[in-house]
Amino acid sequence: MRIDIITVLPELLKSPFEASILKRAIDANLVEVHFHNLRDYTSDNYKTIDDYQFGGGAGMVMMIEPIDKCITQLQSERKYDEIIYMTPDGETLNQSIANQVSLKENIIILCGHYKGVDQRVRDHFITREISIGDYVLSGGELGAAVLCDAIIRLIPGVLGNETSALTDSFQDNLLAPPIYTRPREYKGWKVPELLFSGNFPKIEKWREEQAYERTKARRPDLLDRK
Amino acid sequence: MRIDIITVLPELLKSPFEASILKRAIDANLVEVHFHNLRDYTSDNYKTIDDYQFGGGAGMVMMIEPIDKCITQLQSERKYDEIIYMTPDGETLNQSIANQVSLKENIIILCGHYKGVDQRVRDHFITREISIGDYVLSGGELGAAVLCDAIIRLIPGVLGNETSALTDSFQDNLLAPPIYTRPREYKGWKVPELLFSGNFPKIEKWREEQAYERTKARRPDLLDRK
Repeated sequence: MRIDIITVLPELLKSPFEASILKRAIDANLVEVHFHNLRDYTSDNYKTIDDYQFGGGAGMVMMIEPIDKCITQLQSERKYDEIIYMTPDGETLNQSIANQVSLKENIIILCGHYKGVDQRVRDHFITREISIGDYVLSGGELGAAVLCDAIIRLIPGVLGNETSALTDSFQDNLLAPPIYTRPREYKGWKVPELLFSGNFPKIEKWREEQAYERTKARRPDLLDRK
Repeated sequence: MRIDIITVLPELLKSPFEASILKRAIDANLVEVHFHNLRDYTSDNYKTIDDYQFGGGAGMVMMIEPIDKCITQLQSERKYDEIIYMTPDGETLNQSIANQVSLKENIIILCGHYKGVDQRVRDHFITREISIGDYVLSGGELGAAVLCDAIIRLIPGVLGNETSALTDSFQDNLLAPPIYTRPREYKGWKVPELLFSGNFPKIEKWREEQAYERTKARRPDLLDRK
């Protein structure tokens, strides 16, 4: 998989891709991630990428021309399956969208910043708009990092133990059950005895019940989706 | 506001706080952000912070002891309003939670990693569990960065133009209307004429209608919350 990220703040995105699972996936050539600084696609001396909104109002708008140039350049080099724009009014990311996107070959992710991009970019270039949740961030960069993390960890071979991703929350529309590790007792707080029984079918059953109870208590809406 | 972030991967979190609005807010002393490496609170030579789950199963679990030590140390220095655990089964972050949390004085954010933390940490230390969305990430670090970005930009003085945050998506449960900037025409794609009319009440009315139409088309669920 190849991911091209278009941004005005490539430096903001650096560290999440230089640590942990994203770094391992990149080092193992399971994914390629390229950052493109939008200012490299401007045509004036000031490297202007934004301007005031037409019709008045607070906040700057990202201009169409540098974005067009950058996307056109990338498309001349290879075919892209999706050109994704990170925006709070896009479809809300969930595990099933993450699964879908993780199967693509080449994708572009455009990070909005300031008030967002000129509507014509969305109308003419973008194939999919994704939001990571119902809140506003100062830019699309963290959203892009979140999307990349969610999809890259699903690429086969990225996680050490493949069963690990399959038992995560949401993969079956259930939250994960409680988990415990050493010590068996800490300040009087004990781990449930059953987990030491060695009776794995019973442990599995307990976990399923706990996952169901937790989902019912916290996120009954997920059960409706099953 | 002071934010203490407890993590096994402080290096992953670096760059988002060294750029853009978060950096400006920190430089202007509007917020203090401190990272705490959980490995500094271990008591063995290997700086162990995780172990296998009791009862079997894939994935490592973060142990209670280093987390207890770190939180206890911080609490001995000042009072905290919330100890937040980033987890996919927490309450889903939205703009109203971001508004609430942005009013706190001191908060701790604990980033889960691997399969998550020992359940006893959640039962005995955590006051609030927050998820940034219905998808699984390789750790809580990006979630913490997202939460920080969402709340820090709401602190008065952080955004250059205060009206800017108030006209964002979600602040009134409506998505933002389309926005446009120069050039007026690009490759034959035109900006709506109305925006050049100078008739600001009419422009305002058009924007409200557009915001409503977009919300109705994309996120009718938001209209029910109004």
